Amino acid sequence: MKVCKFGGTSVASAEQIKKVMQIVTADPSRKVIVVSAPGKRFDGDEKVTDLLISLAETALNGGNTDYKVNAVVDRYRMIAYGLGLSEDIVRIIESDLTSRLSNNQTDSSLFMDCMKAAGEDNSAKLVAAYFTSIGLQAQYVCPKEAGLLVNKRPERVRALPKGNERLAQLRHMPGIIVFPGFFGYTEDGILRTFNRGGSDITGSLLAAATDAELYENFTDVDSVFAANPTVVDNPVAIGKMTYREMRELAYAGFSVFHDEALMPAFQRSVPVCIKNTNNPEAPGTLIVTERNHFAQPVIGIAADSGFSTLFVDKYLMNQEIGFGRKLLQILEEEEIPFEHTPSGIDNLSVIIRSKFIDADKEARIISRVKEELNADDVHMHSNYSMIVLVGEGMRHSTGLAARAASAIARTGASIQMINQGSSEVSLVFGVLKEDETKILKELYKEFFSTVPVYS
Amino acid sequence: MKVCKFGGTSVASAEQIKKVMQIVTADPSRKVIVVSAPGKRFDGDEKVTDLLISLAETALNGGNTDYKVNAVVDRYRMIAYGLGLSEDIVRIIESDLTSRLSNNQTDSSLFMDCMKAAGEDNSAKLVAAYFTSIGLQAQYVCPKEAGLLVNKRPERVRALPKGNERLAQLRHMPGIIVFPGFFGYTEDGILRTFNRGGSDITGSLLAAATDAELYENFTDVDSVFAANPTVVDNPVAIGKMTYREMRELAYAGFSVFHDEALMPAFQRSVPVCIKNTNNPEAPGTLIVTERNHFAQPVIGIAADSGFSTLFVDKYLMNQEIGFGRKLLQILEEEEIPFEHTPSGIDNLSVIIRSKFIDADKEARIISRVKEELNADDVHMHSNYSMIVLVGEGMRHSTGLAARAASAIARTGASIQMINQGSSEVSLVFGVLKEDETKILKELYKEFFSTVPVYS
Repeated sequence: MKVCKFGGTSVASAEQIKKVMQIVTADPSRKVIVVSAPGKRFDGDEKVTDLLISLAETALNGGNTDYKVNAVVDRYRMIAYGLGLSEDIVRIIESDLTSRLSNNQTDSSLFMDCMKAAGEDNSAKLVAAYFTSIGLQAQYVCPKEAGLLVNKRPERVRALPKGNERLAQLRHMPGIIVFPGFFGYTEDGILRTFNRGGSDITGSLLAAATDAELYENFTDVDSVFAANPTVVDNPVAIGKMTYREMRELAYAGFSVFHDEALMPAFQRSVPVCIKNTNNPEAPGTLIVTERNHFAQPVIGIAADSGFSTLFVDKYLMNQEIGFGRKLLQILEEEEIPFEHTPSGIDNLSVIIRSKFIDADKEARIISRVKEELNADDVHMHSNYSMIVLVGEGMRHSTGLAARAASAIARTGASIQMINQGSSEVSLVFGVLKEDETKILKELYKEFFSTVPVYS
Repeated sequence: MKVCKFGGTSVASAEQIKKVMQIVTADPSRKVIVVSAPGKRFDGDEKVTDLLISLAETALNGGNTDYKVNAVVDRYRMIAYGLGLSEDIVRIIESDLTSRLSNNQTDSSLFMDCMKAAGEDNSAKLVAAYFTSIGLQAQYVCPKEAGLLVNKRPERVRALPKGNERLAQLRHMPGIIVFPGFFGYTEDGILRTFNRGGSDITGSLLAAATDAELYENFTDVDSVFAANPTVVDNPVAIGKMTYREMRELAYAGFSVFHDEALMPAFQRSVPVCIKNTNNPEAPGTLIVTERNHFAQPVIGIAADSGFSTLFVDKYLMNQEIGFGRKLLQILEEEEIPFEHTPSGIDNLSVIIRSKFIDADKEARIISRVKEELNADDVHMHSNYSMIVLVGEGMRHSTGLAARAASAIARTGASIQMINQGSSEVSLVFGVLKEDETKILKELYKEFFSTVPVYS
């Protein structure tokens, strides 16, 4: 039994949903189908989720919502017509939106969650209606009835393992299950959404709970590539990679698969396959526990910009037990997660994502570090990029750091930071943002342009 | 006016002290002379400080101390005879020891400090007596009278800046000042010793307080070398280096100059010169604020063994604000300082000096990290070495990390950790201890065996 998730572009139009149907019917083991909200049909199009956010904001601001409700309903109506469905399903969707809009707005965040979830929920109802209309045995299943339990606010939303026993029953329900991605319910029945891209999480949760043989994640690319195709010309496709490799790449800028979504599949060792709805014959990228990594120690190179460095210098810092801990505590009190902490003898830098800092936080942090830690020098720099080499073979490969650093040197760029030593599958270089592209191209050339020679 | 410090081997025998006298009289600006306790005269000899520690332990255990008192007094007696001094100075020293032994032993640590300090204190009295005996205007000055103030227990001993005003008066005292290194007094008059090697600290404090033009640190080597001469054949001598370079090298295994001792000189920009008592004509190594680093970006390579790594793995660790801080807090509660913290996405390693850990602490830390932080995997490995490349030119030099990593790759060793990014003057590689020597040799060859070519 397989769980298949179809992303926003795969359910963006009637034409796309027909492809989904063909994929599902081509393999009878494709039983649980998780769908996203309709995405973009063309460049410049709006995603239904964005229309819903805008609608929710209008409602929260007390504005007239009619126009925006119609915009959402029209998207579903066009799909329904294209699939030859009657107006019934459109009325169900319209009434669902009206009902959500009448919800209590006291907690604006929960109101927003409920509005956003309408995208996936109605997408699932629509797809189930279509499947049924062409004679397939299929049913929409609501996450609340199925038992997709999540934790309560104010904690960051996460699925609760205690829901798994009920979710496992999906395996035994008759026919095809069409399940909306992106949200679950607390034990009190409150709807909460996962992070954006959270339909991947739903698919992974169901695959794990039902003990699926495979979790197929259908999107709009043939596979995961070894480097960003908008920077590197025709990068090689990755045929097979491990969970750890996918996770490191996803974290460091590979947006093709949501990193948090890997966990449930990883924990139950359910293989994940990234495939293309528009080219289902392509083998895709298979994510598994182990791979033979000797031929190719590096499997991918990711790059991400938007990093800042907090630099702190204090003479004899190394003799002061607790200095590093106190510094991290100040960041924690400002709710700033950190990425790396390269250290010298009298200095320590903390690398953080710039999006977590604003001018106020920066000023507060600098003044607190100066005063509370008696630092000699504190400053913050932005515009760094991190370039991450990922590969299970790295820990067994002598000279890999040398090859990477030499490739960077050939570009004339200087290395601002190197972090190696904890993860066995990644090597991180901090560079100036202006050097990111040329370094990525050169590293790709170094590790992927040579054809491996076998003796 | 110059402050000169003479280390243990420089005052180990009458012959050596005659060399000290020649050095001091050769330059009338050499006014303040700081001396260590008599050190080893030959391989296998015992340092007076070690004799004193053994004596103090016997006293604390209630044993008969006569034999050990005689051993100490005999060392001074031999020197006094060799210098043609009368038995008077020997009686002064013997009576000083007897008086210290009669001190209150309730606080064994303070008793020990007072016993250890006898080595330097009597060495200074002896040298002053010798200088006077040959017609020089010289006097022993006690740190208590001079105002060398230190903080109270239980804080780690450090000099108090409020003592500086009185210490500055040494400049205006007549003749040569002979001052014992290694200890000072609290405001309540309690004697406390600095870390071992702390005579360097005393010299540096006096040089800073008296605003000396130069602090000459006489030891038994011609200069600081670019690498450990017991590993690398005939390493090049370092003619001039910056305080930061010296500090990084001292910390990472260069034992020639105590790193904490640099601070006072550094803060007042007093240049420090490392010279050889046995070859005072050699130029030595000058430590200053700035140097021209373009010809030689790397000035030295240090290696030190005895490091352990605490590895912690937890899925989605990076989304948990406070994880790193809590981990460091556990180490802090066990009073363990850390050196580096390389990080992956789901894991974090902390590199610590193995000497701070024992089996009990290790077991406690591992169980606390597992339980309190819910880590998936925690373990500790030992037998790592750190190899540090140091040089002010590093931050301006493209490709330096590539050269270093390539040199390491040539040895066939793998790199366990790289830390670059906070210190502008160092690049740290963690390697297995068994690979340390061959890597050090190869890095030395890479950075020092080529003659720079100027166009």
